Amino acid sequence: MSDPFLQLNGAQLMARLDALAKVSETPDALTRLYLTPAHAQGIALVGRWMREAGMTTRVDGTGSLRGTYKAATPDAPILVLGSHIDTVRNAGKFDGNLGVLTAIAVVDALHRQNKHLPFALEVAAFGDEEGVRFPSTLAGSKALAGRFSPISLDEVDAEGVTRRAALVNFGVDPTSIAQEALDPAKVLGYVEVHIEQGPVLEAKDLALGIVTAINGASRGHISISGMAGHAGTLPMNMRRDALATAAEIILAIEQIARATPDLVATIGQIEVPGGAVNVVPGGVKLSLDVRAPKDATRHQAIQDIEAAIARIASARGTPAGLDLTYDALATPCDASLMARFAHVMQARGLPAFELPSGAGHDAMAFRGRIPVAMLFVRSKDGISHNPAEYSSPQDIGLAAQVLYDFVIAQQGNTL
Amino acid sequence: MSDPFLQLNGAQLMARLDALAKVSETPDALTRLYLTPAHAQGIALVGRWMREAGMTTRVDGTGSLRGTYKAATPDAPILVLGSHIDTVRNAGKFDGNLGVLTAIAVVDALHRQNKHLPFALEVAAFGDEEGVRFPSTLAGSKALAGRFSPISLDEVDAEGVTRRAALVNFGVDPTSIAQEALDPAKVLGYVEVHIEQGPVLEAKDLALGIVTAINGASRGHISISGMAGHAGTLPMNMRRDALATAAEIILAIEQIARATPDLVATIGQIEVPGGAVNVVPGGVKLSLDVRAPKDATRHQAIQDIEAAIARIASARGTPAGLDLTYDALATPCDASLMARFAHVMQARGLPAFELPSGAGHDAMAFRGRIPVAMLFVRSKDGISHNPAEYSSPQDIGLAAQVLYDFVIAQQGNTL
Repeated sequence: MSDPFLQLNGAQLMARLDALAKVSETPDALTRLYLTPAHAQGIALVGRWMREAGMTTRVDGTGSLRGTYKAATPDAPILVLGSHIDTVRNAGKFDGNLGVLTAIAVVDALHRQNKHLPFALEVAAFGDEEGVRFPSTLAGSKALAGRFSPISLDEVDAEGVTRRAALVNFGVDPTSIAQEALDPAKVLGYVEVHIEQGPVLEAKDLALGIVTAINGASRGHISISGMAGHAGTLPMNMRRDALATAAEIILAIEQIARATPDLVATIGQIEVPGGAVNVVPGGVKLSLDVRAPKDATRHQAIQDIEAAIARIASARGTPAGLDLTYDALATPCDASLMARFAHVMQARGLPAFELPSGAGHDAMAFRGRIPVAMLFVRSKDGISHNPAEYSSPQDIGLAAQVLYDFVIAQQGNTL
Repeated sequence: MSDPFLQLNGAQLMARLDALAKVSETPDALTRLYLTPAHAQGIALVGRWMREAGMTTRVDGTGSLRGTYKAATPDAPILVLGSHIDTVRNAGKFDGNLGVLTAIAVVDALHRQNKHLPFALEVAAFGDEEGVRFPSTLAGSKALAGRFSPISLDEVDAEGVTRRAALVNFGVDPTSIAQEALDPAKVLGYVEVHIEQGPVLEAKDLALGIVTAINGASRGHISISGMAGHAGTLPMNMRRDALATAAEIILAIEQIARATPDLVATIGQIEVPGGAVNVVPGGVKLSLDVRAPKDATRHQAIQDIEAAIARIASARGTPAGLDLTYDALATPCDASLMARFAHVMQARGLPAFELPSGAGHDAMAFRGRIPVAMLFVRSKDGISHNPAEYSSPQDIGLAAQVLYDFVIAQQGNTL
């Protein structure tokens, strides 16, 4: 009999990532949007690997591929592993796909040992994580969490196709989605391996990290009203320059974020409407994006930012205010699942390094309903959503082995 | 005989400004661009007022209307008074026109007294000050200064008409322009009344101010290179945020300008190429406009700004630099002409308040060749290049009377 751990090998995983990356809407780049023919081809390929790993497979009402590996006993609880196989346009090959392939590799190893656990393993290959095609996202994971909103079936893509029509055309039944909701009492957790998409692990020289939470996020914009004026004739001491106010606000926000562990705040866009080289700026608009693993931390930072804006605006005589347009709660990871990752990593001599996730993931859909955990894999230069996205065979092999250890260790806690 | 000082009256000047403002390319707004039919009509109207004031008139090779009021003796020197009668689009009625009409009013008062001075008075109504039609500007005043560049005859306007063709079509001879150069040895000075186009006199509660210099100006842009990154996954302490660097640079430039009397520095435009709400800015481009009445002051400020940019860029690991694209020398006003304005203003109980000109004027064309002086008139709210541009009848009447006093006082110095 062959090596039961064959698929847990980094080179083997890389070969499958490469094969899956060839399944694309375009020949020279990886683009696999939700409910496209390329998505269907991806499901066919991944489904075959699931079945080779001893799973039964089906495609649910959201177009998620679901593989089930039976428990040792009937009516056992379920541990859900997975990630997504849709991609952005011109994507990297690791984002999402790695989480699905490591999960399959773990089941494959159990299957080759003919080993069944006191819980079933469900591997989910979601299809709607990137949010490229329709306005809302996470249809697959929301369905499992019992959070799928039927209103989203009326959303249309850029071609005017509704989500409902796209699902029907994909060969699935959108009216069945409500039945996909898992019973939280029967689910041990949702566990996802994913590339970090950031530079922290690389900077720490670590292959893996345990996610503490998927950051909550606030978004909005800051509007500043100054007084436009002639750049030549308006003396400095008579100016109410909206851009100078904006500069102070930008630095104050940076200060607040730097002083708050694990919080990030970003001003990514700035606009001086009607701005000209010889006109003192009369108005400025800034974007704001604030994320933190704890909602209380984030909301305190927003309050501090509002206070700083009010103080600076008043001192400069340039009214300014923050208008929040988006608030997403954080998804804290489950302490005992995190402890299990820490235990198995330390058993392999790996530090149990913890970090928050700044990007969103399917795990968010389960917030407050099903315990979640995530294992991050080092990303070269922190690059993602780009063909240059890269994690080494060593690191992805290690991730698969740690996930295997995690599942085995979970066994001890479930018996 | 009627009041010889009739035209020095504010209400009378306002009536002429209103009449001239009706001469426009458009019925509901004042737009009188260089070498247009409206410009020709403006010349006809202003020329009539010049002749009524005892002047002989002609239109020179640049389309400037020139009125001459003879001296008491032949071969006497010349004092040039004037400003421009072209306007921006949707202009105010005072910019330029006021300087021409106050000059005519002064000559009118002399004429009504049958008074000739030991110098001739030349009133120039230039036509190319605003620079709206052709790339270069000040053709009329440059011609008098001996600085007209024949290369500019090949410039084209937005319709593809060359400056040469426009002049010929206007009925003037562009090949004659070189002959318009005045002999500096025979010219006492160029003196221009103009609205301030800024808020300083209004803030000081003063009707008039003596211009110290037309500010020199530097323009350019500042480029900052940071490192783009994911707003969620890039921790604060690993960022090289080009916009945060820009914010520090904006405030440093403001500090330098505030600490330097009479200097103004403006960042009117800012751009984050490819900026998005969820991307840490990887690059920023700023415009820079610096003006000061003394070139040494301005050049020192530019050095200080460059040093600040280098210091901030280095501390933040975000390379940045200033690229200057334009440098115009200041035009200092002549000390004895300024002293004469001060003298006649004080004789009327007016403070001899001095201020620099932040905007450009025809007087700039004479820098280093002919002594210049300018008298500024209070602008309501500092507004210009706008129909809301306004100076009161009291203030413009006072300006005309002070200009008259100035010319009479000049007489004492010329005899």
